[in-house]
Amino acid sequence: MAKYPDVSPLVMRRLPRYYRCLTELESNGTHRISSREFAEIIGFTASQIRQDLNCFGGFGQQGYGYNVSTLRGELGRILSVEGQLPAIIIGAGNLGLALANHVDFEHCGFRFVGLFDINPAVIGKEINGRVVCDIASLPAFCRERKPLVAVLCVPPAAVPGLARRLVELGVESFWNFTQVDLSNLLHDTVLVEDVQLGDSLMTLSYRVNERLDGSK
Amino acid sequence: MAKYPDVSPLVMRRLPRYYRCLTELESNGTHRISSREFAEIIGFTASQIRQDLNCFGGFGQQGYGYNVSTLRGELGRILSVEGQLPAIIIGAGNLGLALANHVDFEHCGFRFVGLFDINPAVIGKEINGRVVCDIASLPAFCRERKPLVAVLCVPPAAVPGLARRLVELGVESFWNFTQVDLSNLLHDTVLVEDVQLGDSLMTLSYRVNERLDGSK
Repeated sequence: MAKYPDVSPLVMRRLPRYYRCLTELESNGTHRISSREFAEIIGFTASQIRQDLNCFGGFGQQGYGYNVSTLRGELGRILSVEGQLPAIIIGAGNLGLALANHVDFEHCGFRFVGLFDINPAVIGKEINGRVVCDIASLPAFCRERKPLVAVLCVPPAAVPGLARRLVELGVESFWNFTQVDLSNLLHDTVLVEDVQLGDSLMTLSYRVNERLDGSK
Repeated sequence: MAKYPDVSPLVMRRLPRYYRCLTELESNGTHRISSREFAEIIGFTASQIRQDLNCFGGFGQQGYGYNVSTLRGELGRILSVEGQLPAIIIGAGNLGLALANHVDFEHCGFRFVGLFDINPAVIGKEINGRVVCDIASLPAFCRERKPLVAVLCVPPAAVPGLARRLVELGVESFWNFTQVDLSNLLHDTVLVEDVQLGDSLMTLSYRVNERLDGSK
């Protein structure tokens, strides 16, 4: 059974931000923080913070606030940041390489175990201490290393076939950087976390234009 | 004055998803769609869809549904996707290059006008038809081309100084891929759209672990 079956996805999606903020506070030497101070830093209201954290059991003390290290530890545990879910990246273009090089998989609950591409020009190259493998070797790799998560950085046309193949090979969770809507392609039990850069950019467009209109 | 001052940020942030979905429907030849059908595809409830779109004036017709092209056109206009906000990318590492190559700035309201780096090894190189410029040339460039938006793909330590310098040069909106919280560094009028890949990955970690726990 899931540990927190009643926690809404919206609350859950705020946890990484709390965790990130607490990590910074801890590295600055802050030992405790009131929900009011926390609110000022993080940009949520104090009551929202108390409400969110109460979903997981509270952690705060009336009149004392939150112990930064303890709360960070608890949220890290809830987010399983010290887990080692084996993950592979499919697509060793700029984006795949950027993710392989820059993303801190190890502190977010994953272990990055392989990078695959179909392009003979990059297969066999070593990047950041990791050799780009031929995608043809994926079935054997999956049998042996049992990756659970695939990061998809491939062109849209390649996605449907690739995603179905990965599911057959036991990879049932995706970090999806393609613009393809995987949830419509695969059965319901597959987990997809989308990173829709275009949506983020359109949001910025709206906000910038709103400000420009406002200053007219 | 802002065009839609009463629209909540949450509603606004759903618009790109509606727009993306409608673009796909249109390219599949769908002419009209009911809010119920739309709900099934997009994963929101029909009443949520009606409520969201009503914030901008409705667009639907009782018993008919939505005209896909018209609605897509209206949402595109609201999001200013055909705008040409001049944008620069700072940082020509893998991530900066991935964004320069893969992100469809032109269909999201922007015009990508320059790519800058501090590293002599990449300055002057041509990437995707665009030469990497020396960051030392930024003041002159900004005076001439007046970029409004900067995409930040630089190491955390470089962010505070760089961001303040960009604001002085008239760049007041940021698409922020660094892990640095810009809102605490800059004054309130600066717009920041964060892409926190670590948060997304931690969310995936939570969800995968929840499922693994659930299947025990």
